[in-house]
Amino acid sequence: MTQKKLAVIGGDGIGPEVVAEGLKVLEAVAGPDAFETTPYDLGAAHWQRTGEVLSDETMAELAAADVILLGAVGAAPGATDVPSGLLERGLLLKLRFAFDHYVNLRPSRLFPGVPTPLADSVVAGREVDFVVVREGTEGLYCGNGGTFRGGTPNEIGTEVSINTAYGVERVVRDAFERATRRRNKLTLVHKHNVLVYAGGLWRRIFESVAAEYPQVSTDYLHVDAATIFLATDPARFDVIVTDNLFGDILTDLAAAVTGGIGLAASGNINPTGAFPSMFEPVHGSAPDIAGQGVADPTATILSVALLLEHVGLLDEAARVEKAVLADISARTPGTKRSTTEVGDAIAAAV
Amino acid sequence: MTQKKLAVIGGDGIGPEVVAEGLKVLEAVAGPDAFETTPYDLGAAHWQRTGEVLSDETMAELAAADVILLGAVGAAPGATDVPSGLLERGLLLKLRFAFDHYVNLRPSRLFPGVPTPLADSVVAGREVDFVVVREGTEGLYCGNGGTFRGGTPNEIGTEVSINTAYGVERVVRDAFERATRRRNKLTLVHKHNVLVYAGGLWRRIFESVAAEYPQVSTDYLHVDAATIFLATDPARFDVIVTDNLFGDILTDLAAAVTGGIGLAASGNINPTGAFPSMFEPVHGSAPDIAGQGVADPTATILSVALLLEHVGLLDEAARVEKAVLADISARTPGTKRSTTEVGDAIAAAV
Ligand SMILES: CC(C)[C@H](C(=O)O)[C@@H](O)C(=O)O
Ligand SMILES: CC(C)[C@H](C(=O)O)[C@@H](O)C(=O)O
Repeated sequence: MTQKKLAVIGGDGIGPEVVAEGLKVLEAVAGPDAFETTPYDLGAAHWQRTGEVLSDETMAELAAADVILLGAVGAAPGATDVPSGLLERGLLLKLRFAFDHYVNLRPSRLFPGVPTPLADSVVAGREVDFVVVREGTEGLYCGNGGTFRGGTPNEIGTEVSINTAYGVERVVRDAFERATRRRNKLTLVHKHNVLVYAGGLWRRIFESVAAEYPQVSTDYLHVDAATIFLATDPARFDVIVTDNLFGDILTDLAAAVTGGIGLAASGNINPTGAFPSMFEPVHGSAPDIAGQGVADPTATILSVALLLEHVGLLDEAARVEKAVLADISARTPGTKRSTTEVGDAIAAAV
Repeated sequence: MTQKKLAVIGGDGIGPEVVAEGLKVLEAVAGPDAFETTPYDLGAAHWQRTGEVLSDETMAELAAADVILLGAVGAAPGATDVPSGLLERGLLLKLRFAFDHYVNLRPSRLFPGVPTPLADSVVAGREVDFVVVREGTEGLYCGNGGTFRGGTPNEIGTEVSINTAYGVERVVRDAFERATRRRNKLTLVHKHNVLVYAGGLWRRIFESVAAEYPQVSTDYLHVDAATIFLATDPARFDVIVTDNLFGDILTDLAAAVTGGIGLAASGNINPTGAFPSMFEPVHGSAPDIAGQGVADPTATILSVALLLEHVGLLDEAARVEKAVLADISARTPGTKRSTTEVGDAIAAAV
């Protein structure tokens, strides 16, 4: 296999710490030559030093990569000098939109032995293993909106959710394809009884694509009801497809009920291959625990597994997953290991 | 006390069944003369028969009521002849908007003995008792949006979230007031790192009102993180204030973790008194169990307690709450009682 170009954005807070462990595992499983790794210094600290969030030059270099691994970006909550959304909109979402990551893939699996906040009566003896296909390039995340009469008592703030047939159909189709490779069950989540324009579009497209996949059984849930099922019956789900905002919300909840945000991996995927896909843990930069070497790198390591799968290294992906699973089930509740200890253990096992 | 005019909208599905029990308890606690009750036949069935969702005449009558009790509206999922959103937008949301119900009040309390999907490690020995103040008159619920190139492969569906300083400030202020009457803790939930215009407005107003309430300790959570805390540490919350859509989502999840949607009460409140406030269970019309007499009326009965509190019958409100609490703790898990049995028991105890 030809060497792949891997762009690495550690980012802020715990980002660089967990990414280091992800790279350690990547090298252990794929060898030192499978990826040519280039680090990019981006995030809050970089912005504070340079005044630049993401230069055109860096953007062009990232576009030339085959794949991107990202830790987390975002300033500490107290950092009032970093405008809200500057890094999220200017870096993370900019990459997702520019590289047309229309499939934001977020698997949730309750591994044996992992503590869950849910009662035994909800999960015992049931297999919780589903994946959320979150639309990643439109909806309320599009950034269209504005401030009118800003700073006055008559200020108005608007946000526009833009949903296109083109954007909805391709992600719905991807979700149906994934369902056929899993348990043939697909749930659409929206709120079409209130958001009639966006919801109507999603629903009609979902139904028309469903006609091409008679083997997939489908259902629909309003987003509020979906949160109830995630808390009371997560085993009912196989594949969920939903829009950008609902996907953001549901995947944090899904992570919580399957052992926490420390285990939740994600892929921002451009299935056409026209742009590099980007893999990242679902968690944020967690400034409160940054620099202490205590962040759990498992979510990043599982994101590396998704990355390996994406570039076609299926066997390596499976080995990482297996090593993570073994590591998780060997964990002693209450015992804390350092970030590097977890990375070392998994790297040694792949 | 002068007699109050109570407009009653049973609605669809289980709505009329649970409302009957709510009225039973209301009469038992307040006597037969405290309220002059007028039933209004509205909902899917009414629309199917008359072609009208809500006439101007009915609207005028409802506006003249002192207070409204509503069951649930919404057609069966299979009823393809009822356009999506017709009843939600044309009836429920129309009332909330027309009567300026800017405080959508949704208390969540984990009563002793109530089964929760959460593990003992999360809730045992902790008091889960919080209230969500959901903005009820703007945000993404405003209904502004549209379909462009509808039905073509280039269709675009938009939804606009409108947030005004006026609308945000009054609900934020109400939430601070409520916090001072509770445990002096208020959490703002939004997604200001992505929705920078709406989120910025909410955040700035929240901070400026907070300066007037130094005794209230405040924090902020992104909506995705808030779902995690609801599943892993619901006892951390006292009062939550948030926008219309986030409030919709969080309160279903809050209901789920505190014993289910069968217990979740709500008030759509116009604190100025210019319009009648409306009380309703959070749950929907549940067409799958309608007509069987098995729906749990507790959420409606707790909504009646909120209604009594709203009209100043504080002692009566407390008695209903106490009777519900006693009834709940006397329930034998696994035993099912009919809708009327629950209503009778609580009515007998008030
Ligand atoms: C940081 C933020 C912009 C991001 C999102 O909302 O998508 C995060 O919450 C996520 O889920 O990846
Ligand atoms: C029926 C629907 C319009 C409503 C809402 O979204 O507000 C319901 O979910 C609720 O929470 O009261």
